[in-house]
Amino acid sequence: MSPVAAFSFNKLVILGVGLIGGSLARALRERAGLAGRIVGVGRSAQSVARALELGVIDEAVALDDTPALTRALEGADLVLLAAPVAQTGPLLARVAPLLDPHAIVTDAGSTKSDVVAAARQALGARIAQFVPGHPIAGRESSGVDAALPELYVGRNVVLTPLAENAPADVERIASMWRATGACVREMSEAQHDRVFASVSHLPHVLSFALVDQILATPDAELKFSFAAGGFRDFTRIAASSPEMWRDICLANRAALLAELDDYTAVLARFRAAIEASDGAALEEAFARSRVARREWQERGGVRPAGESAEK
Amino acid sequence: MSPVAAFSFNKLVILGVGLIGGSLARALRERAGLAGRIVGVGRSAQSVARALELGVIDEAVALDDTPALTRALEGADLVLLAAPVAQTGPLLARVAPLLDPHAIVTDAGSTKSDVVAAARQALGARIAQFVPGHPIAGRESSGVDAALPELYVGRNVVLTPLAENAPADVERIASMWRATGACVREMSEAQHDRVFASVSHLPHVLSFALVDQILATPDAELKFSFAAGGFRDFTRIAASSPEMWRDICLANRAALLAELDDYTAVLARFRAAIEASDGAALEEAFARSRVARREWQERGGVRPAGESAEK
Repeated sequence: MSPVAAFSFNKLVILGVGLIGGSLARALRERAGLAGRIVGVGRSAQSVARALELGVIDEAVALDDTPALTRALEGADLVLLAAPVAQTGPLLARVAPLLDPHAIVTDAGSTKSDVVAAARQALGARIAQFVPGHPIAGRESSGVDAALPELYVGRNVVLTPLAENAPADVERIASMWRATGACVREMSEAQHDRVFASVSHLPHVLSFALVDQILATPDAELKFSFAAGGFRDFTRIAASSPEMWRDICLANRAALLAELDDYTAVLARFRAAIEASDGAALEEAFARSRVARREWQERGGVRPAGESAEK
Repeated sequence: MSPVAAFSFNKLVILGVGLIGGSLARALRERAGLAGRIVGVGRSAQSVARALELGVIDEAVALDDTPALTRALEGADLVLLAAPVAQTGPLLARVAPLLDPHAIVTDAGSTKSDVVAAARQALGARIAQFVPGHPIAGRESSGVDAALPELYVGRNVVLTPLAENAPADVERIASMWRATGACVREMSEAQHDRVFASVSHLPHVLSFALVDQILATPDAELKFSFAAGGFRDFTRIAASSPEMWRDICLANRAALLAELDDYTAVLARFRAAIEASDGAALEEAFARSRVARREWQERGGVRPAGESAEK
């Protein structure tokens, strides 16, 4: 990537002004001190009214108000999709005919292969204008009231550029995220989906499954009453949003199934060692895991506060 | 159980004065203000020297010093085994011929069916003198230097009395633990092992397995570099002691295999729902888990500090 360039923008349109979109707006304005106009688009004017009231955006537009949306996108050089991943296709189809030919569109979706497929279908020949992205940040709370100008400081943002993207456009989206304090990294969409299936989506499924298993047993109450610190940490992510995780599981289905099958094979090896009372094999595997987990922690792990709801 | 009785003791012999045994000694002396004599027995006099130096015990005895061990057990009314579970049989066989007929022996092992089987073999006709127990407490650090008089305050201690135990003996061990501030609960050894296989041993195996799976892939470094808060909490227990968890897996083998198979079946159901893109089934299961996890947390969960190394 080229050296950090000064970043500025004329008009940024954010589709979906919640935690992610709202934090980007606040970061660019309050942290980077940028003066460009920021327009928020919501399902209804109502749904972005709070963002306007908080001063996070300069103008609130309803998605179905065609004249207002047309005006909003006129001269907009940046467009961010920050709505649930499943809405990527419909939203891009809605804005495609109104896009300025110089506008660059990016997104914040936590899966990428499905987003790119939806974008190709919705944008057709304009696909070069779409630079896929994924800021790795979140909080327990959601909505624009939870938006923070510092949300992205020190966080990773993954871009998965398309073959069709102009390098300058990719760099522009990268410099936008760097202006929020984030570290920008690039990889392919397949690699992105595999990495997050492994370190985020699979653990969520495994954690939900443990609570679900206990619930289905007749002595569930007794078990819960003796659950301690290990259970607490292991299942913290089982308190995550069921709708969001349903969508992520389906959006990243192929990569998640591959990781799940791979994990099941590891578990079968562990099971065989336990059944055979093969203490040496168990100790070796556990020791290997402990070393890796400790090294990860020592290399910095992750910030402990404010980012626990990563997707 | 009968109402709380005043507890006192004449002489307590602790076999293995580490975190668990040392904390009991400190709790009885410093918290409950009891004046009975406390003798610590170690593999060598050296290994209990530190406990003596810290004033946690009144006398240090080496296990292989038969005259000293004989004197230590003379008139001892309470004996606690607080060594690794695998040593239960040999330790009990060692002390059995020296036991005062009025002594009550208890243990602190994190599995119970195997401990009871070893105790029956080692104690033979004296099995009625053995009341099996498991204090649910621990810390990240181990050894007598980590021992605390408050370690057991508000913690559960499970007793799994034998048919042969006199109720008064069970009550005496219960009142000893209550004097440390613990809550004493009773269940069968099979139920104990099932409960802890489910809420503690299985999560540890699942957590070790995730780190082990990632390690075996060519892009392990990339994956670790994007691991965030969900991964951190899910895998915290994968930094636990490999030796200890090897021993627990083998000691609680039957119950753990049953839980593992049950879990694998739940995971297969989740997999089928993901493969079939059955969003409704996923959302329903995730929502059920979330409600249960949140209720558990609201009912009190566990104390967040100082007990994370439960076994």
